[in-house]
Amino acid sequence: MTRRRARARAAKAWAGRFATPTAPAAEAFTTSLPFDRRFYPHDIAGSVAHTRALVRARLLTGREGARLERGLVRVRRELDAGRFRFLPSDEDIHMAIERRLTELIGPVGGKLHTGRSRNDQVAIERRLTELVGPVGGKLHTGRSRNDQVALDLRLWLRAECDALDAALARLQQALTALARRYRDALLPGYTHLQRAQPILLAHHLLAYREMLARDRTRLRDCRARADELPLGAGALAGAGFPLDRRFVARQLGFARVTANSVDAVADRDAAAEFLAAAAICAVHLSRLAEELVLWATEEFGFIELPDGFATGSSMMPQKKNPDVAELVRGKTGRVMGALVALLTTLKGLPLAYNKDLQEDKPPLFDAADTLRQSLDVLAAMLPHLRFDTGRMAAAADGLLLATDLADLLVERGVPFRRAHAIVGKLVRHCLATGTSLRELDATVLGKHAPQLTPALVRRLTPARSVARRRVLGGTAPREVARQLARATREEAR
Amino acid sequence: MTRRRARARAAKAWAGRFATPTAPAAEAFTTSLPFDRRFYPHDIAGSVAHTRALVRARLLTGREGARLERGLVRVRRELDAGRFRFLPSDEDIHMAIERRLTELIGPVGGKLHTGRSRNDQVAIERRLTELVGPVGGKLHTGRSRNDQVALDLRLWLRAECDALDAALARLQQALTALARRYRDALLPGYTHLQRAQPILLAHHLLAYREMLARDRTRLRDCRARADELPLGAGALAGAGFPLDRRFVARQLGFARVTANSVDAVADRDAAAEFLAAAAICAVHLSRLAEELVLWATEEFGFIELPDGFATGSSMMPQKKNPDVAELVRGKTGRVMGALVALLTTLKGLPLAYNKDLQEDKPPLFDAADTLRQSLDVLAAMLPHLRFDTGRMAAAADGLLLATDLADLLVERGVPFRRAHAIVGKLVRHCLATGTSLRELDATVLGKHAPQLTPALVRRLTPARSVARRRVLGGTAPREVARQLARATREEAR
Amino acid sequence: MTRRRARARAAKAWAGRFATPTAPAAEAFTTSLPFDRRFYPHDIAGSVAHTRALVRARLLTGREGARLERGLVRVRRELDAGRFRFLPSDEDIHMAIERRLTELIGPVGGKLHTGRSRNDQVAIERRLTELVGPVGGKLHTGRSRNDQVALDLRLWLRAECDALDAALARLQQALTALARRYRDALLPGYTHLQRAQPILLAHHLLAYREMLARDRTRLRDCRARADELPLGAGALAGAGFPLDRRFVARQLGFARVTANSVDAVADRDAAAEFLAAAAICAVHLSRLAEELVLWATEEFGFIELPDGFATGSSMMPQKKNPDVAELVRGKTGRVMGALVALLTTLKGLPLAYNKDLQEDKPPLFDAADTLRQSLDVLAAMLPHLRFDTGRMAAAADGLLLATDLADLLVERGVPFRRAHAIVGKLVRHCLATGTSLRELDATVLGKHAPQLTPALVRRLTPARSVARRRVLGGTAPREVARQLARATREEAR
Amino acid sequence: MTRRRARARAAKAWAGRFATPTAPAAEAFTTSLPFDRRFYPHDIAGSVAHTRALVRARLLTGREGARLERGLVRVRRELDAGRFRFLPSDEDIHMAIERRLTELIGPVGGKLHTGRSRNDQVAIERRLTELVGPVGGKLHTGRSRNDQVALDLRLWLRAECDALDAALARLQQALTALARRYRDALLPGYTHLQRAQPILLAHHLLAYREMLARDRTRLRDCRARADELPLGAGALAGAGFPLDRRFVARQLGFARVTANSVDAVADRDAAAEFLAAAAICAVHLSRLAEELVLWATEEFGFIELPDGFATGSSMMPQKKNPDVAELVRGKTGRVMGALVALLTTLKGLPLAYNKDLQEDKPPLFDAADTLRQSLDVLAAMLPHLRFDTGRMAAAADGLLLATDLADLLVERGVPFRRAHAIVGKLVRHCLATGTSLRELDATVLGKHAPQLTPALVRRLTPARSVARRRVLGGTAPREVARQLARATREEAR
Repeated sequence: MTRRRARARAAKAWAGRFATPTAPAAEAFTTSLPFDRRFYPHDIAGSVAHTRALVRARLLTGREGARLERGLVRVRRELDAGRFRFLPSDEDIHMAIERRLTELIGPVGGKLHTGRSRNDQVAIERRLTELVGPVGGKLHTGRSRNDQVALDLRLWLRAECDALDAALARLQQALTALARRYRDALLPGYTHLQRAQPILLAHHLLAYREMLARDRTRLRDCRARADELPLGAGALAGAGFPLDRRFVARQLGFARVTANSVDAVADRDAAAEFLAAAAICAVHLSRLAEELVLWATEEFGFIELPDGFATGSSMMPQKKNPDVAELVRGKTGRVMGALVALLTTLKGLPLAYNKDLQEDKPPLFDAADTLRQSLDVLAAMLPHLRFDTGRMAAAADGLLLATDLADLLVERGVPFRRAHAIVGKLVRHCLATGTSLRELDATVLGKHAPQLTPALVRRLTPARSVARRRVLGGTAPREVARQLARATREEAR
Repeated sequence: MTRRRARARAAKAWAGRFATPTAPAAEAFTTSLPFDRRFYPHDIAGSVAHTRALVRARLLTGREGARLERGLVRVRRELDAGRFRFLPSDEDIHMAIERRLTELIGPVGGKLHTGRSRNDQVAIERRLTELVGPVGGKLHTGRSRNDQVALDLRLWLRAECDALDAALARLQQALTALARRYRDALLPGYTHLQRAQPILLAHHLLAYREMLARDRTRLRDCRARADELPLGAGALAGAGFPLDRRFVARQLGFARVTANSVDAVADRDAAAEFLAAAAICAVHLSRLAEELVLWATEEFGFIELPDGFATGSSMMPQKKNPDVAELVRGKTGRVMGALVALLTTLKGLPLAYNKDLQEDKPPLFDAADTLRQSLDVLAAMLPHLRFDTGRMAAAADGLLLATDLADLLVERGVPFRRAHAIVGKLVRHCLATGTSLRELDATVLGKHAPQLTPALVRRLTPARSVARRRVLGGTAPREVARQLARATREEAR
Repeated sequence: MTRRRARARAAKAWAGRFATPTAPAAEAFTTSLPFDRRFYPHDIAGSVAHTRALVRARLLTGREGARLERGLVRVRRELDAGRFRFLPSDEDIHMAIERRLTELIGPVGGKLHTGRSRNDQVAIERRLTELVGPVGGKLHTGRSRNDQVALDLRLWLRAECDALDAALARLQQALTALARRYRDALLPGYTHLQRAQPILLAHHLLAYREMLARDRTRLRDCRARADELPLGAGALAGAGFPLDRRFVARQLGFARVTANSVDAVADRDAAAEFLAAAAICAVHLSRLAEELVLWATEEFGFIELPDGFATGSSMMPQKKNPDVAELVRGKTGRVMGALVALLTTLKGLPLAYNKDLQEDKPPLFDAADTLRQSLDVLAAMLPHLRFDTGRMAAAADGLLLATDLADLLVERGVPFRRAHAIVGKLVRHCLATGTSLRELDATVLGKHAPQLTPALVRRLTPARSVARRRVLGGTAPREVARQLARATREEAR
Repeated sequence: MTRRRARARAAKAWAGRFATPTAPAAEAFTTSLPFDRRFYPHDIAGSVAHTRALVRARLLTGREGARLERGLVRVRRELDAGRFRFLPSDEDIHMAIERRLTELIGPVGGKLHTGRSRNDQVAIERRLTELVGPVGGKLHTGRSRNDQVALDLRLWLRAECDALDAALARLQQALTALARRYRDALLPGYTHLQRAQPILLAHHLLAYREMLARDRTRLRDCRARADELPLGAGALAGAGFPLDRRFVARQLGFARVTANSVDAVADRDAAAEFLAAAAICAVHLSRLAEELVLWATEEFGFIELPDGFATGSSMMPQKKNPDVAELVRGKTGRVMGALVALLTTLKGLPLAYNKDLQEDKPPLFDAADTLRQSLDVLAAMLPHLRFDTGRMAAAADGLLLATDLADLLVERGVPFRRAHAIVGKLVRHCLATGTSLRELDATVLGKHAPQLTPALVRRLTPARSVARRRVLGGTAPREVARQLARATREEAR
């Protein structure tokens, strides 16, 4: 063990009770620094608020508080600039920040580290610390890492919910814009991936908009539920000093304080709920991605992929692959895996804090990043899609109009079940003779559906089919225009 | 194939287009009747509302509508009474109900089936049906199974959310009652399953109450988001007839109608969100269950299991096992599995309806039942728990008071970090000499913590420790009383 | 509580130590009878083998052993015939069988229950039992439910592995038969769902055969690892009597005995491994199902679904839906969910047996049944598929030959990377001018690829492309014939 | 776009067919370089073998082959030394290596890049490349990234299986050593976490050895099944050149070549099976970890955690937390999440390669690393555990001997069920009177168990209880010694 390492070890905040330092294997295994360092802005913000609460509770003097805040600002700047030097003994971002803070603001205000030899500095600092203790050492008064990490997690989650909400909004806008651009285009609507009924492409695209709207409300609910200050819970029993938790909550913009200190440090509901919302959203994106992949096939041929969002093959020169959509689809697994990871980790843990909870962050960060990237790349790609509206319109014609034929019979008094059976037979006739529904002649109609005339069936078209469906939420142009107008209004806000 | 079977087949609603009947292997594989029959009350309620909408849209006469409603009531009664006879050709509960309805209400009002030979009945019915079509055959006008099953699912989910909310409330009440009964009992609070600080048992129990409170709001959010009428979406394009969807929504108590017909039939968000909420709740129960198992060990010895909620061993005569708690913990896997099952099923499905969606119900029903049973059995068991408060109080004393000792130093001006280090050394001294913190003498204190006197450290007790923690949400008796009062108020509503 | 119920309770095998009977809520919650009754043949086989071991160890006389065996045969017959009456107090199938056995074979050989009043019987039986104890009560000597249920599980798993192996073999045969029937048919091979290179349909189908072959070896490995007798482990410490475990293993056809009694009752590896193998297999089926759905679309049009394995729509008369394939795909979620359920249940359980382990069976049974049904229905459906070979051949022609063109250049000395780039440009030329690769004229070739002549490029055909790929495992007819021959040999065994 | 970036783009291997370069958003989203770079040793080994196969097939001259091999060695050295400079246009490790190779070995043998101005170099290289093409461009002949990545994955998996096998063996050795050190120590064996029967600690520890032994065979089976060369499958149809795949397999030490080219590139079974084996192993570790956490509690008090493998609290000075064990337990979720991630990604993918498959690596790498770290840290920690054998022996005495008492009765002819009931009553008597089984007097015995005398029951001890259980696999010292001897033999190999 090098001397620097030994010193670093000795500095561990809880070393007093221990006879021997942590084994390197254990240190490497238990550190969370590789992933929790992204908490640093939240951790520092939390420490600033906590400092003010300590001043308010007269556990710090105003001068001490000011010195701590200045020190925290300096640490933050170092971290922002990438100048912060982590030590192997820094177990996590919280300890790293507190360690650095203590280095920066010794009892003489952090000036020690300028214009003096390192040896002198260390000697002076040690002596002074022995006399009065460093101010940095007062920051953790009435606080535990347990409530500190719970705080950072909630601050991060709030910010991440907001960021995802913005990303979702951008993808919604891309969908709306595409729907508006193709507002008259027909598409065969599918069920069971079989052509079912003609619909408007815009209507189809707006279905995804609805899904994303629900995703946004789910994240909003998650955020609102998470919007509670856990700081003040201490290790689990509540802080031992009369800190004004409502004051801290206001400082940090929280809506409420947590009601029970044991729950506050043991709980990871917000993370689990966030991952569940993320997984549902990822499933939505996987469905859109699947359709893009299908539409880009030669067989469907509904879209031309933009060159900038497709890739080629290392071997087959003609290939143009929908990699972006495929990856969006494939990454669903990753987000779902993160949800399973966290729930499994939480299962069966007794109260209150257990170290297992440290494993909440890797799945959380990975899922949040994955989802955000997927949303962003789709929002970037959608404006470049070109639809082959002619081909889509052609595919939206034909036997898809069978339901409209049945509806015609219903309007002439035939019970729907009977109309359905009659049209089923006419469809078989068309398939057997290679004719279309519009070509049914008087003989055939007379036999199966005497209520109808050739003139009537000739009037069946995709456009008329679509126009019929003007119930609320239906695919009729009038209804789709209404959906679009609503979307436009929402996006203008 | 028997004749009855053949007839049943022929009766299939969509048979017109098909040359040969469904293969028995396929029929057995695709049927959803074994599980979706529990939808029947919702399916019938939906059909009644749809009937009224058809009358309102003049697609049925008032008399036809009344006849349909009467028929639906009769079908419901048969199902309620367990008298309904399902046929092999009944693909699902929707078709079974419509088939039976059509049998019951022929053109002469369903009286056919009384006082006539079966042969006569059939002959008359066939002739009349050829003339005017059965009224039953009009029920499905402007409706598809796709929006019908989406409707049933939402109706069931609303009811299930309400039922779970009630079960959660009962478990909360059991926790509150237990906390009230033991309001003065001390418990060692644990972190890392190591004794950490003394807390009140009531405080600990109320932590679970908080978790369940969040579960309830999650289910409430889920219910509110699901509270939209999908009927009217038809197969995917919207109904082909001008049905008043808002009228139907009012009939069924829905807050809104779905905004996009494609989304309405393709979406299973509500089910996924429900399962996510259920999984998080199951994880909460697993934590409570783990603690009950721990507390019931001879080593902890905090609770005595009621005989009625424990079981013995087939081999070891002395055993008394916490089976109920273990099973609650074990069933968490089942609920999480259900969530994974549904999300996996949904992943990568193109719009709109696909048959895969039929697989939403088995995990949904299994998870809902499992969770409800777990909640109920815990609520039934908790009132019978007897805590060994003496043993708990003894376990809450000792080195757990180290934080209070550090706090004493802080109050005497020692920075917390330094106080922590000092007490760490005192703890090592106690461990080495087999003494307690309260027994630290003047010599030892003088060396490590001259700020303290033996008299001061002798005042450290669990009761004082608990009383200190009176921040909002802390374990101080005053704070716990406040939590209890709030709980009582909420439960009185 | 009714008298019968009270009596049933009192009969509970471990009731001696308990003051009050199990609460009905707990009894309903903890029973495993609704699902574990399917273990009964295995449970009885295990009890027969155990009986013989007890005789061998002189813990039973030969006469007692014979009586027990006869009794077990009678219980089995009752269960086979559905005549067995379960009681509410029967916690599980093991206790139910032992209870019934004790009823049947009193000390006078089970004749008590014929030709005597019930009251007489009970009185005599009670007296005799007091004198010598019922023989039934000796069955559980040296055994615990812990090792008994571990035994039943392994016996069931062995049988289920065999059944799935047979089902997999049947599906492989169906694939081989289909490949043989269409041995000359071309198919566009896809990567990224974009047409990539021509292949033989038979080659494509045989790819699935390979996956299933691996599934079979995985199940075989699982079975071999599970093929150990756990009986004799007792509750966890090993039986207290000198039972010859190897003798029991031979009776039940086990390859080995478990090496450590604690592990034997705590372990559920075999179940977890089985579910993992099942999940991987289900994923394979989901891929085949996805392709069937795609091929059945109007856009691909490669297969015509047999009417017997398709279903119609309740609303759209023209629909013919690939429900079977969709459900196979959808049920993948269910099997994966089962795997997650079991692993989650096992996570974090201390040794040895915990009641949580009872929750191994519902996911296990559900996944095994689901997978078996999926395999069977696919094996039943495949023979009825009709491929449109003309359409497939047409789709396998065109730009898919670009790689062959690059290969031509390579054969003329052009480094592959350069050849790839050249052909890439030729492809762009074809796309821009709407011509095919075979139509490239001397001018264009001269400019981009002077090594080639129009005559050379005209020789590019799907058939020649396929024939080129005669490396081991390639799609050349010769290679595919070799694969088919190997398959035929394996299936003839 | 900077010029360097533009140039990098232009260099993309498949750029020929594309009019515009990849959008930066898409490039960032689709790159796999951040994670697949760890494949580089395998990728280069595969390219060397492929080069030799090309020479053998006369697609390269011997000199060209030698030049390629030398170039590959240089690339490998750059990567080993961390000197390799990746470009933004390097989509993945395969393309990065080929790109760098082409830079290094121009037509004049890679000497271009020394002693000449960059401009000169580029001009000469361009001209020469136009004339004959760079040798580097020949490497990809008859190969696709699809079979290349499949190859790398299998090479990596083989190596990782070996590494995990070694880590598992080390943990087994640590368990054996601990068992040997404490070969006489008693432990209360638990079921339902209730004291059940006395066992030897060594027996308990060896139970984990058994689990790990199964884990090793599972990984071995996985490795054996994965031990097939996929190279030669090309993009999906098989290489277009007559490469000797068996030769390549021998070069790389593969047992076989894959039998079907479509399967070879579409398949990720080996990865899924690996993750399943990893998840089961992680569950084993979670159980051991749970027990370490329990044993380290003050309540159980069976082990003293080594200071080097425990950590303290930031707030509570007395704490010594079993962080390592907790994290091992918590990380189970992560490994399970990885399994779910991959299976979900694979679900429903049509054949053959899809870009989704790129998402196989992040969960695979994360799970492998996580598991390996967990195994290693446990193997490092176990030797430092100190068991409190006195406390364990005391806990192994008492009512745990009830089964032995029942066995005594059985030996005196009482049927086991009756013996169980009798002892149950004696246990209740002991609990009510606060006496132990050994203190039962003649009066009580005479009433409930006249077959027994006080002298007989006084002979009940944990040591005798353990000694009785000498069936194969039982906890008797003789049997445990046999298990230990077997372990020693295996480890000596």
